[in-house]
Amino acid sequence: MTHNAELIAVGTELLLGNIANTDAQMLSRELSALGINVFYHTVVGDNPERLRAAVEIARCRADILITTGGLGPTCDDLTKVALAETFAKKLVFHAPSAERIKRFFDRIGRQMPETNLQQAMLPEGCVVFDNDWGTAPGCAFEENGCHVLMLPGPPRECAAMFRYRALPYLQGLSDGVILSRTLRIFGMGESAVESLLREKMNALSNPTLAPYAKEGEVELRITAKASTQAAAAALILPVEAEMRAVLGHKIYGADVSSLEEVCLTLLRERGLTLGSAESCTGGLIAKRFTDLPGASAVFKGSVVSYCSEAKASLLKVPPAILQKDGPVSAAAAEAMAAGARALLGCDLAVAATGVAGPGADERGNPAGLVYAALSAPEGCYVKKLQAGAGRDRVRTFAASYAFDLIRRYLTGLLQ
Amino acid sequence: MTHNAELIAVGTELLLGNIANTDAQMLSRELSALGINVFYHTVVGDNPERLRAAVEIARCRADILITTGGLGPTCDDLTKVALAETFAKKLVFHAPSAERIKRFFDRIGRQMPETNLQQAMLPEGCVVFDNDWGTAPGCAFEENGCHVLMLPGPPRECAAMFRYRALPYLQGLSDGVILSRTLRIFGMGESAVESLLREKMNALSNPTLAPYAKEGEVELRITAKASTQAAAAALILPVEAEMRAVLGHKIYGADVSSLEEVCLTLLRERGLTLGSAESCTGGLIAKRFTDLPGASAVFKGSVVSYCSEAKASLLKVPPAILQKDGPVSAAAAEAMAAGARALLGCDLAVAATGVAGPGADERGNPAGLVYAALSAPEGCYVKKLQAGAGRDRVRTFAASYAFDLIRRYLTGLLQ
Repeated sequence: MTHNAELIAVGTELLLGNIANTDAQMLSRELSALGINVFYHTVVGDNPERLRAAVEIARCRADILITTGGLGPTCDDLTKVALAETFAKKLVFHAPSAERIKRFFDRIGRQMPETNLQQAMLPEGCVVFDNDWGTAPGCAFEENGCHVLMLPGPPRECAAMFRYRALPYLQGLSDGVILSRTLRIFGMGESAVESLLREKMNALSNPTLAPYAKEGEVELRITAKASTQAAAAALILPVEAEMRAVLGHKIYGADVSSLEEVCLTLLRERGLTLGSAESCTGGLIAKRFTDLPGASAVFKGSVVSYCSEAKASLLKVPPAILQKDGPVSAAAAEAMAAGARALLGCDLAVAATGVAGPGADERGNPAGLVYAALSAPEGCYVKKLQAGAGRDRVRTFAASYAFDLIRRYLTGLLQ
Repeated sequence: MTHNAELIAVGTELLLGNIANTDAQMLSRELSALGINVFYHTVVGDNPERLRAAVEIARCRADILITTGGLGPTCDDLTKVALAETFAKKLVFHAPSAERIKRFFDRIGRQMPETNLQQAMLPEGCVVFDNDWGTAPGCAFEENGCHVLMLPGPPRECAAMFRYRALPYLQGLSDGVILSRTLRIFGMGESAVESLLREKMNALSNPTLAPYAKEGEVELRITAKASTQAAAAALILPVEAEMRAVLGHKIYGADVSSLEEVCLTLLRERGLTLGSAESCTGGLIAKRFTDLPGASAVFKGSVVSYCSEAKASLLKVPPAILQKDGPVSAAAAEAMAAGARALLGCDLAVAATGVAGPGADERGNPAGLVYAALSAPEGCYVKKLQAGAGRDRVRTFAASYAFDLIRRYLTGLLQ
């Protein structure tokens, strides 16, 4: 049986345009990977009457309703009250959730306001989604063939609760297994990937093949439906092999979360340490690498040399290079990487220097020009990039490129 | 008369989660500034039947319908056809639009596909919104007191067409303005703010007062409706004064985007430079500060001393401190800040050292324990924090706290 889901986001901040409905984007992607159709998204404010009206409409056109938001104490638990009313459920006190909320406040060392206990009132007989990422528990129940799931609004909580709580619940509704495998690609744009694979994508129905653009990278998701896990995996296998034949080393991993995760794994396997020297990325390389639990086993540190003096004094970039070639140059990138490697005493060091923008630099280098370098025991690799437009995009691309240099070096692709 | 608008976004790519509905965010913000209520957003795919159903529902609950997307040749001009049908309008050929489309292709040096001429078919008697940013013209018409506006989907085109074409059309309908002012609070949780202000919030109707949690901070929004900008501002003024009296220096700014932005402004005003030394934040302080255009005028750099050796060799943290107090200690934080200030030659330096988690460190310090320090010419300030649970949250809170130290120091609040 094919399920149709509707997403209802609750929050006046969405209707005022303070935030975009990124929860709907995340959930849509996840549901489509599960083979669940999404035909509508609705956004409604913190208003019980209009929320009930939206739910009445949604339950007529979908058999899975997923709400996001409206579970906090500040909106009087609007969503739970409205959904319980619409589906004639009583709200009852759930002691384990109350305990969790109390413990949450203990852990962060704050006094729990009494209003937070409201969050432990949940629809009678529901499946409780424990919240390990915030205070409001989510929940799910079925009524007359309609499944209602309520998730918290803050994107981080919503994503984690979906993945660890709602996903298993939804998988239980499906009568087959849906398996997907995500190949991650760096160094090719979405449209290039799409034109290359369009014919193949159109020809396939099970598994399906779909590319998604994501922060300067492309994800290619292969999704198969079958009666068992093994049968689904067997459908995916030849398609993955074909994609690897077509895209080669542009594919940096399968079912991994990021380039930096691949680098951490490779560095640990080889017992090597890493450091960085950052100019235009301003700490982003270090920040992304240390986002990973376990980074401390590998990562020595980073020198964010945002001004030229720091490049000279800390990283020992020769003054002649800074004067003649300038701080945004291949020579400077190379010297920065070598400097960081010596200073931090690490096996490998990467460096990025460039113009994040919005404007050109004082030497007339255009925004988006970046040099990335890798210093290794046997020498230095340096690469000139055009990292696109927009400060965020330039910085993200430059950091990703530095990680890709490490990945390529450690897998013998840099010659 | 107060108008109610509903936004209908048309596009399967939204339902697949390939993109977020940022058009709705932009339009919501613009409409609320115009004093037009937005009670619902709807997203529907490239499907005529479901689009018509969504329009039928929307016209019963709003008197302004704004559609985005579905005007391109690839979706057979879905939106125009469905809306014309629902409102019993004929589509007629609009020669000036056809001319514009032809000229657009001439300008980019490409042959115009015949299908693009479809875009010149517009509802009879409509106001045409010329598109200077792409090919699809938008339009507006009124039928039985309901205003229908159609805008293109690509965010850049949508924003420009709204601003230069739809806005003047809507201004003709509006008879008031909505003004809001956002106070940003650091150092108090959402529930604490909410308990403190609940009575006040309930008592107010114009302006309204609403708190929103946002990455370890709270935003408090005061929103007033009035006939003029000045009258709305006058309504906000006494409420803002009252909030400042209640919350004091927990409010770090009004209508600003972040703590780091406030720091950048203060540092520039005073002609001071900044640096940082980071352990648990792993580059996040530097990353967030250099996210801001113009940071280079103030920011010297950062030393991300992720391992103890780097704390000793680079930042000159005395070995005795690292051995006796450990790298996660008040003494280490102080020495790191002082070390960074000396090394980078900056006026002020902040440092953060702690346990990001998920687990405790080898000395048994629990995840979430952080020491933040500020080194200034007249001495050092250090503070022990419980930064909550979850690696991201701990790091974000620690970095925010470091910025708050700078803010407090520069406004004379650190004694």
